[in-house]
Amino acid sequence: MNALIFQSDFGLADGAVSAMYGVAFSVCPDLNIQNLTHEIPEYDIWEASYRLTQTVKYWAAGTVFVSVVDPGVGSDRRSVVARTSNGVYIVTPDNGTLTHVKQFVGISELRSIDEKVNRLPGTADDYTFHGRDVYAYTGARLASGRITFEEVGPALDPSTAVELPTTPCRVINGDTGFGTIDVLDVRFGNVWTNIRRSAVNELGLSYGDRVVIEIECEGRIYYRNELAFARSFSQVAVGEPLAYMNSLDCLAVAINQGSFARAYNIGTGNNWHLTVRKA
Amino acid sequence: MNALIFQSDFGLADGAVSAMYGVAFSVCPDLNIQNLTHEIPEYDIWEASYRLTQTVKYWAAGTVFVSVVDPGVGSDRRSVVARTSNGVYIVTPDNGTLTHVKQFVGISELRSIDEKVNRLPGTADDYTFHGRDVYAYTGARLASGRITFEEVGPALDPSTAVELPTTPCRVINGDTGFGTIDVLDVRFGNVWTNIRRSAVNELGLSYGDRVVIEIECEGRIYYRNELAFARSFSQVAVGEPLAYMNSLDCLAVAINQGSFARAYNIGTGNNWHLTVRKA
Amino acid sequence: MNALIFQSDFGLADGAVSAMYGVAFSVCPDLNIQNLTHEIPEYDIWEASYRLTQTVKYWAAGTVFVSVVDPGVGSDRRSVVARTSNGVYIVTPDNGTLTHVKQFVGISELRSIDEKVNRLPGTADDYTFHGRDVYAYTGARLASGRITFEEVGPALDPSTAVELPTTPCRVINGDTGFGTIDVLDVRFGNVWTNIRRSAVNELGLSYGDRVVIEIECEGRIYYRNELAFARSFSQVAVGEPLAYMNSLDCLAVAINQGSFARAYNIGTGNNWHLTVRKA
Repeated sequence: MNALIFQSDFGLADGAVSAMYGVAFSVCPDLNIQNLTHEIPEYDIWEASYRLTQTVKYWAAGTVFVSVVDPGVGSDRRSVVARTSNGVYIVTPDNGTLTHVKQFVGISELRSIDEKVNRLPGTADDYTFHGRDVYAYTGARLASGRITFEEVGPALDPSTAVELPTTPCRVINGDTGFGTIDVLDVRFGNVWTNIRRSAVNELGLSYGDRVVIEIECEGRIYYRNELAFARSFSQVAVGEPLAYMNSLDCLAVAINQGSFARAYNIGTGNNWHLTVRKA
Repeated sequence: MNALIFQSDFGLADGAVSAMYGVAFSVCPDLNIQNLTHEIPEYDIWEASYRLTQTVKYWAAGTVFVSVVDPGVGSDRRSVVARTSNGVYIVTPDNGTLTHVKQFVGISELRSIDEKVNRLPGTADDYTFHGRDVYAYTGARLASGRITFEEVGPALDPSTAVELPTTPCRVINGDTGFGTIDVLDVRFGNVWTNIRRSAVNELGLSYGDRVVIEIECEGRIYYRNELAFARSFSQVAVGEPLAYMNSLDCLAVAINQGSFARAYNIGTGNNWHLTVRKA
Repeated sequence: MNALIFQSDFGLADGAVSAMYGVAFSVCPDLNIQNLTHEIPEYDIWEASYRLTQTVKYWAAGTVFVSVVDPGVGSDRRSVVARTSNGVYIVTPDNGTLTHVKQFVGISELRSIDEKVNRLPGTADDYTFHGRDVYAYTGARLASGRITFEEVGPALDPSTAVELPTTPCRVINGDTGFGTIDVLDVRFGNVWTNIRRSAVNELGLSYGDRVVIEIECEGRIYYRNELAFARSFSQVAVGEPLAYMNSLDCLAVAINQGSFARAYNIGTGNNWHLTVRKA
């Protein structure tokens, strides 16, 4: 039995997630249902997209993710199921939630959900909770083998999956890495960029080097200073800032046992730029 | 194997929920244990009651819910197991937690828990954590078939299940719907009433109509304005208020991608009244 | 199949916990994976240690706990698996996380994790997320029987497990119990000490007695007053303070339906001292 993994911006304080679970177990009581997170900030499609990229590669082929961050529920936005290059399925409104997976994992196939057959019976009059009525129901049917991927609905061109604006990382003048701050390691306030190990290698950085980090958003400089490029937090003093390669193999900046994001009011998204060069 | 679903006001930050899980798995390691929520506000029996009504109908007959919001632990309040009209069991202190299920789902049978047999061995001297010692233990035994419903303890008259005060929704003068604000869609700040679709139909409202909403609590008016009665959030502008039918088929009020409850300081409970009429 | 239980200070807002789950299910898709908590305050090894003691005894022998509060990731701190006296395994950095289990449950065997064999293939270059690469992977292999306890790595002397400083409870002059405030019952603000029932009995306290409680930290008195020693919260009025025996059979202090910790700014740890004597 393939695992069924839920993500949403619903929080866990009310009955919404449990209703989705109930619908899924009613489809098949033997499902292995787990959560990615339900604490995506409300309506934050970007973060939903990133959290999928952060996790899908650690799950086996056949796993079905259901992601419901859906400010457009009830509009004509498409409902789709993507099949990633590593064989994981993602059931989601097609509103940008697939952005990072499309760019960094790859979407091999995409299908539109045919709601005439893939919708919880008796809910045709409900226009506000597709997470329960369409996505949980369809995800459970797919994960349990009640339907095949083909039976989800008609095939779409994977290149048409909606993407939010992104800026690829690049190396400038051979000595400066440029990227965006995509997300925070929320609880610890670590700042995660999209600057990949290949770019870091191109800059010739080695653990132990000193680097200059600059963070800018819409013309304002939030941080410009020299710090250690370290293999791990334990290589620097408690309270000392560092740059390091994070668990997704991208450049990140942190304060050892402090919060870099809170210390310098760092945000995330396509307008938050970080550059790195050897000191 | 029937699912076993926990709800409490314990939060997930300490070991209390894990101790209940451990007790339940010790009864039967193959149980399918899930959470409704553990973020019921402390001692808030009303909200515990509502969250059960919000979810029980999405779970299969035989599912066992254990709800532990228990300010009277150690008093002589009864410990009971209710069987709902849709065949779900609810293990709970009889302190009002069954209010909404009794009124909107129906309780077909009620039994008192006989703690002489249905209590974790070795815990007779513990007076503060019946969630672990009595409710989790009994729920696990019932869900796993170790005991039958009859073996829970002596039958009680279902009409004696304790109810908190509630006010039914009604239609006044044929043109004004009146109800209470029962709960919030917590994360989004949407305001959920007990005004059912039948009442809305009696008012002759159709999607696209303008309606006048008034919210009052203990003599003070918190909101009185005209807004759209819409099929879904996407029918109105971002930041615009709307009335809609929520996922439980009751009237609700919200701001699209904003928080109606925070915008107007709206609370919940039997003293919070909302009226609706065609503009 | 033995249960696999995760604890960390990661929170549930991002993809870190889901990545650990994915790794574990990739080792064995039939695992029964559950959470203790992921809301340990950041880097708070003391609280991680306490939460393990609070829960391990309710889980069956063979259960595998994975606890990842790891400020020293990437340093030369040891990675170990402990076997408790009740047959539960704990996979953890050896940084003090085993303190309370060692003292109050007992560690019968301890082994060092041999990372040459017990590490997720392909992650040798990752120095920041041993929770995923070493602990989740090793815990899953142990819980599923892929490896035996002996195959974790070389045996260590259990007495060498790192301990944080603690102060045992004691009885002074035959009439005063002295202990530390080890932890809060977080959501309710109840204050839990390490004063065990045997010490309370030595003081001759009976339910219904009045007691004098004094709380001191680094020379400052935070609380000194007389209150009821009660069997349960329901024995005192709403809003009234009480002392009681908590669900771990230690002395605790609370306000019925209020927060004692917030009322008097009470903290936790080895410097927070509480004394109790009959009034």
